[in-house]
Parts: sequence; structure tokens; C-alpha cells
Amino acid sequence: MKKIWAFAGLAVLYALSAARGDGTAAAPDGPRFTADGRLERPANYREWVWLSSGLGMSYNPAAPSRVTADPPFDNVFVTAAAYRAFLQSGKWPDRTMFVLEVRASQSQGSINRQGHYQGARLGMEAEVKDERRFPGGWAFFGFDGDAGSAAAIPRSASCYSCHAHNGAVDNTFVQFYPTLREVARQKGTLRPVTETPVR
Amino acid sequence: MKKIWAFAGLAVLYALSAARGDGTAAAPDGPRFTADGRLERPANYREWVWLSSGLGMSYNPAAPSRVTADPPFDNVFVTAAAYRAFLQSGKWPDRTMFVLEVRASQSQGSINRQGHYQGARLGMEAEVKDERRFPGGWAFFGFDGDAGSAAAIPRSASCYSCHAHNGAVDNTFVQFYPTLREVARQKGTLRPVTETPVR
Repeated sequence: MKKIWAFAGLAVLYALSAARGDGTAAAPDGPRFTADGRLERPANYREWVWLSSGLGMSYNPAAPSRVTADPPFDNVFVTAAAYRAFLQSGKWPDRTMFVLEVRASQSQGSINRQGHYQGARLGMEAEVKDERRFPGGWAFFGFDGDAGSAAAIPRSASCYSCHAHNGAVDNTFVQFYPTLREVARQKGTLRPVTETPVR
Repeated sequence: MKKIWAFAGLAVLYALSAARGDGTAAAPDGPRFTADGRLERPANYREWVWLSSGLGMSYNPAAPSRVTADPPFDNVFVTAAAYRAFLQSGKWPDRTMFVLEVRASQSQGSINRQGHYQGARLGMEAEVKDERRFPGGWAFFGFDGDAGSAAAIPRSASCYSCHAHNGAVDNTFVQFYPTLREVARQKGTLRPVTETPVR
């Protein structure tokens, strides 16, 4: 009897943990890598926790010369287990994974007459925290079209230095995620960010 | 022994169902009403499935005269159980619930130099499908500030006729949710939408 209850209890715990993504390294929504270290494309990132969307954002002071009528949207998602950990601590746990999805914007269509709504996907990138795997703890990945996996972007790329210098919380642009910015402020983990980007 | 296993099995099923929101009327993420029929404010809608965001959208042909430098973002979330049902069928099940969150947009801040990112919440509305409760199956709600509940918006309001006439799928603007638009097209549930809004 005792054995059976113990197993039943474990099964319930496992079911809850798996479904809620409460695990750590074993979290079902964490990053998965191929044998040669490529990041596997997450199939269900649209069901992760969405953090925010921007339209036509650019950190380049010279950017205004590139203004277009229909700039892209960027949508940011994070794994559910990492999100819940951040709500508790204001910090990102190991094996946090973000997806940045870029989509075309449209203005005139259906009954819309002004402003912009979202269209076709133009690109998909990921940022992953894995302290044992990556120097500095974080790495970036760009998925080529519908490719099933992506190699890490070389560490010489500007995304690494820009995020490290300008991220409001640990390599991430929490300053642009309004609800998490407030969490980080309350937890005391929000780093003052300079107005002048360091690249 | 058999009884114990049956219970353990039920416990596991319940745990999975509750955590994943696979239920129907009993889904933990469905709408909840007060005794006098007001919709309770959902505490965790930011963890629901996000469908899309727009910036400065307007269906009013006269809208261009109201263009502002920093128009609001609108973010749309739906309950997880309803989302999964839609992926399967291209239709919204009973007790589907949407939240429309309106947020201020900002352009110059931190290292951003162009485009718009999201700021403070300006408003929060909901659309609920409950075929036994509402004539026509759907109702709209506007939460006043941080109010814990909201009364249904009167049926004479333009949101009812506009959604009924212009929604691409069953009273909802699936035409503006790029991934679900494609699901509905594949499932054959996408209604052709006129370019001229009916109000």
C-alpha cells in the first residue's frame, strides 16, 4: 500500500510539474540542443508567455533615415517556468529561453483604416541562458527560415555586447517589457540603463 | 488495490487537466461571474495565450485626422483551453474569453531611438462567449481602472454590431491574428470580410 501511494503521489507531482513547467533542467519548455550543440527550434513558442511587442524599434541613432511606412513588429516570448521564476525573484533562472519573432506590419486591410496590425513572419531568433554551456551564460541564435535548428551566433556579433551592456536585467531588455520592468523594480534587480547605448 | 489505482489515475488526470486547462465548463481559465452577473477580473491574463498586438489601429474611415505621435498598443489574449480548441477546429468553444489590453506607446527611452515600445496600461476589456448567458452568445466588458469586476456593456454599443458583422470567425477579429487566420483558412471557418465596415 505504501509503495503504491508513494508512486501515485510521485505521478501526480510529475504530472503537475510537467504540465506547469515547474521543473528546472528537466522543464519541458526549456532549450533543447542537438548532439552537435545546435538549438532545436521550439515548436510551440506561441504558447509561451508573451512579454511585449514593439513596432519598428531601433537602437541605432542613425535609424530615422531608415523609417518606412510599414516597419516590422517584434514579439518577445519567454518559457513559462522562467517567467514564473522571474515573478518570484526578478531574475532569470538557468535554462531561460526567449524567442524574438519578427512579423511584417500592415495598415490597410479588412476594416482597418489606420495604424498597424501583424502579418507574415519575417524571422525568428532566440536567446538562451545556460551557464555551463555558454561563456557569459547567454547565447543568441537565428533560425534560417523554417530550419529545425540553429547554431549559436558568433560571440563577436553586436547582440552580445549590446545586451551585456544595455540589458536592464542580466543580459535582457527588461526595460522594454512593461510588466516585468515593474517586477524587477520591486525586487531591486533593475539595473540603471544609460540613455547612450554602449555597443 | 483497484480502488487505489483508480483514484491515483483520476488524480493524475485531474492534475493534468487542471494544469493544462483542458476542461470545458470547468476550465480553470474560463470566465467567472459574480452572483449578480458581473465578470470577475482575470488576475493572470498575461499568462494566457497572446494572439497579436497592433499599434494605433482604427476602423474609423475618418481616423487619419486623429493620428498622434504615440498611439496606443492593443494586445489580445485568449484563454488557453479555447486556444487549443481553435487549433483543432477553427472555432471558438463555449466559455471562450478574450482580454484586450490597451497600453501607452513610447519611442524615446533607454537605448531606443525609433519606433515604439509598450508602456503603462491604459485600459482592459474582455469579450466572452457564453451561449446560455448572453443573447447572440457573446458579450463585451470594460474594466474600470483596477475594478475587480465589470458589468456587460449594453447591447446597443457599437462593439456588438461591429464584431457580429465584421468578425472573420464567429464575432471575433481573427483576420488580425496572423497565426489563427491561417488555422481558420485551413479549417474552412474563415468568413470573407468586407473591406467596408458594417456598423
